[in-house]
Amino acid sequence: MSAIRHCAIIGGGVIGGGWAARFLANGLDVTVFDPHPEAERRLREMVALGTRSLRRLVAAPLPPEGQLRFAGSLAEAVAEADLVQESAPEIEHVKQRILAEIDHYAKPTALVCSSTSGLLPTRISSEMAHPERFLVAHPFNPVYLLPLVELCGGEHTDAASIERAQAFFAGIGMHSLHVRKEIDGFIADRLLEALWREALWLVHDGVATVAEVDDAIRFGAGLRWAFMGTFQIYRLAGGEAGMRHFMAQFGPALKLPWTKLMDVPDLTEAFLDELAAQSDAQSGEWGFRALEAKRDDCLIGIMRSLQSQGFGAGNTLAAYEKKLREGQKPVEPLRLYEGTVAQDWVDYNGHMNESRYLEIFGYATDALLARIGMDDAMLARGFSYYTVETHLRHLGEITGDERFVSTTQIIGHDTKRIHLFHRLHHDDGRLLATGEQMMLHVDTAKHKACEAAPEVLELLSALAAAHRGLPVPSEAGRGIGMK
Amino acid sequence: MSAIRHCAIIGGGVIGGGWAARFLANGLDVTVFDPHPEAERRLREMVALGTRSLRRLVAAPLPPEGQLRFAGSLAEAVAEADLVQESAPEIEHVKQRILAEIDHYAKPTALVCSSTSGLLPTRISSEMAHPERFLVAHPFNPVYLLPLVELCGGEHTDAASIERAQAFFAGIGMHSLHVRKEIDGFIADRLLEALWREALWLVHDGVATVAEVDDAIRFGAGLRWAFMGTFQIYRLAGGEAGMRHFMAQFGPALKLPWTKLMDVPDLTEAFLDELAAQSDAQSGEWGFRALEAKRDDCLIGIMRSLQSQGFGAGNTLAAYEKKLREGQKPVEPLRLYEGTVAQDWVDYNGHMNESRYLEIFGYATDALLARIGMDDAMLARGFSYYTVETHLRHLGEITGDERFVSTTQIIGHDTKRIHLFHRLHHDDGRLLATGEQMMLHVDTAKHKACEAAPEVLELLSALAAAHRGLPVPSEAGRGIGMK
Repeated sequence: MSAIRHCAIIGGGVIGGGWAARFLANGLDVTVFDPHPEAERRLREMVALGTRSLRRLVAAPLPPEGQLRFAGSLAEAVAEADLVQESAPEIEHVKQRILAEIDHYAKPTALVCSSTSGLLPTRISSEMAHPERFLVAHPFNPVYLLPLVELCGGEHTDAASIERAQAFFAGIGMHSLHVRKEIDGFIADRLLEALWREALWLVHDGVATVAEVDDAIRFGAGLRWAFMGTFQIYRLAGGEAGMRHFMAQFGPALKLPWTKLMDVPDLTEAFLDELAAQSDAQSGEWGFRALEAKRDDCLIGIMRSLQSQGFGAGNTLAAYEKKLREGQKPVEPLRLYEGTVAQDWVDYNGHMNESRYLEIFGYATDALLARIGMDDAMLARGFSYYTVETHLRHLGEITGDERFVSTTQIIGHDTKRIHLFHRLHHDDGRLLATGEQMMLHVDTAKHKACEAAPEVLELLSALAAAHRGLPVPSEAGRGIGMK
Repeated sequence: MSAIRHCAIIGGGVIGGGWAARFLANGLDVTVFDPHPEAERRLREMVALGTRSLRRLVAAPLPPEGQLRFAGSLAEAVAEADLVQESAPEIEHVKQRILAEIDHYAKPTALVCSSTSGLLPTRISSEMAHPERFLVAHPFNPVYLLPLVELCGGEHTDAASIERAQAFFAGIGMHSLHVRKEIDGFIADRLLEALWREALWLVHDGVATVAEVDDAIRFGAGLRWAFMGTFQIYRLAGGEAGMRHFMAQFGPALKLPWTKLMDVPDLTEAFLDELAAQSDAQSGEWGFRALEAKRDDCLIGIMRSLQSQGFGAGNTLAAYEKKLREGQKPVEPLRLYEGTVAQDWVDYNGHMNESRYLEIFGYATDALLARIGMDDAMLARGFSYYTVETHLRHLGEITGDERFVSTTQIIGHDTKRIHLFHRLHHDDGRLLATGEQMMLHVDTAKHKACEAAPEVLELLSALAAAHRGLPVPSEAGRGIGMK
């Protein structure tokens, strides 16, 4: 089966927009069809936030961004696609019709997926001529950050289509959960819906406000659910004796009337007004885009934190980064400075003093700056790069008359800054120290940061582009602390 | 009302043990009564993990740990207590009896709280002579880390008791949620229970395994619930149009059969065996204590990450740390090194070269080491402190012949390490740079870390104790990065 390089997205709402961001950031071309007059503006805004957020999350080189196009019709949108992701409204007959149309216009080799949160794949694919290449791929908002995707085939879905989807979604950093039984709401939304119904009752009955219900989650159990599900959490709540003990202890409480065991509250106008008003009050100070960006930044922090713990969604992220790095050609850091330790660099401990490590890395930085055109003439024009931060790690010792080699890797840059990672090696190859530095381009007369000259940025970008293929050192960005 | 300094804990299981850890780490004395023969051993293990975890979480000086005692009877346990926290089994008549007994033996001024997850306060306090000083204070496991505590009074509870509890729990770093309507399961456990019932059905009906149900949470919605509840998350899922739009879009799905709208599955032996077996399989590689410690470390990472985002439980933590710091007497960092910038320390940029900053901080470190007995004799015995990490931040410029002053603060230490924070000031008071360092005590002949001599540790501990009153610099522990 051919590789998936081009994706069509049918329906450009919050879910379609989230898919677009994830696909584009992974170097896939995307064509969107959505007849809503505001669709393109909204989707471009979502993609802007989504690609920014995914880039913040992933500490590995993402491929060059894919091309985004908008098509005037469904037929045009799916014509070239290797994967069609349907994200239309959650109405069975609408999805049936759209999926039949996708099936008609898409290439025979295209995989067709639906983002439905809970409609049955057999039913929504019932009008497709080729349901064997169809499955549900149900993501979670924001689609570009949350790793989970539930995969659920219908009666006619080929096992090969499921496998193809699993490989594809893993490749773009997702965690597939294969829902083996076709069931309304699949697994995740049955759980979410149960909690959501109870939440609606609590507000409906005046027990708690929208904000109180949310606080009851995010200051308590929600903090745990970010990395362990209910079963594993309860296993620990059972103490040493485990799950059997927990069930013996809390099983009886299941018979207590702790949930509203009935249908949902009537969504009357009055109740909906109350909900909306409370929701407005809860988010009062935050505009929609600001709250969305804050949500993303919290998720990024949580997932990176879980990665450093080697747990849950952090492992999905680590596997994704590893895969991204494997795809890169080998590149070497720059070998910019080498020499011999002078005898007067040795201190009372009998080896090179710590400040000399920084002196050596300073020479390496100067050599790098020379390569990007920061010469005497530029200095005379009143421009320089100043070090604003340094993080040194000492891993070995070197003493007088021994040889050393310093290498330098560019791990980030923008128009004002260069983020460097130096390594000092003994000439026998041992790593002696690392030095991470942030350099800031300054107007030396005004003592203020300013953008570097275009010719400097051009040379810098070329070096940085080459270094994008190097693994980002796992130590980069780390702080000092006692565990 | 008198301050709460002494707490009694009745019932030393997972919840009672969690309370003990939180109370002790906050400097409160704790007396425990639990008739189980293994209670003391288990509780001490829980307290060991809990105090370790809370200290990892909180970047501010916690007071000296409280005293832990075990009492031979309930009467003895509660005699001196200002607060009694009942954490007995979740059985109504058991709680009724225990609470009546507590009421009988406790001081009249003592506040009495129950940890019940969902029993009604009016009912469980029905045999108390003084129910006005009683309320539910329902925490979440692990109690020493999760900030949420639901407070719910009964019909006879005084408003003053609720207020006293709110002030007390805020003081030990918790977020109180006042449950204003007495309702089975309060707010949080109604939500948790709804999800839990659905989870049990999914396993019972063979739709998913325990591990799959958990994955459906922790790779998706659970990551969001760590900082935003269901309502705010759904508000964002509605796109720009907000909550009303979300309800219009997804309200109809509430009528779909996405949950089991009925009672719980029968907890037959066969079903319980299946649950326990799946739970064992899920956690297979992890022992109980290891999994518990991993859970804590994930929570710590998440809450510290949310603190840097200024959101949700991160704000609770920040307020707690602020309060802890306010309680401290003013202390000054050590002024260990000062001097004049030599002309040959000035580089081509016209100000002191970066490596000289580290040289100055190195002299300050040497002065500190001299104060704790790391003299020539100790060096001759083959012991020294080596710098293993340094993080410099440059905030200003200084040039030849100008005066500088360096100060040093000890922000952490153990038997092998010293975590230092230097500041370099211009003599006009401007902060020029900060230098965070980790020093490691080494056996210089073996080139290996080892514990420092007792006389060194004694001097170091005394200096460190004085510095515990200084605010921990917000820059400490930070990494270098481009936002």
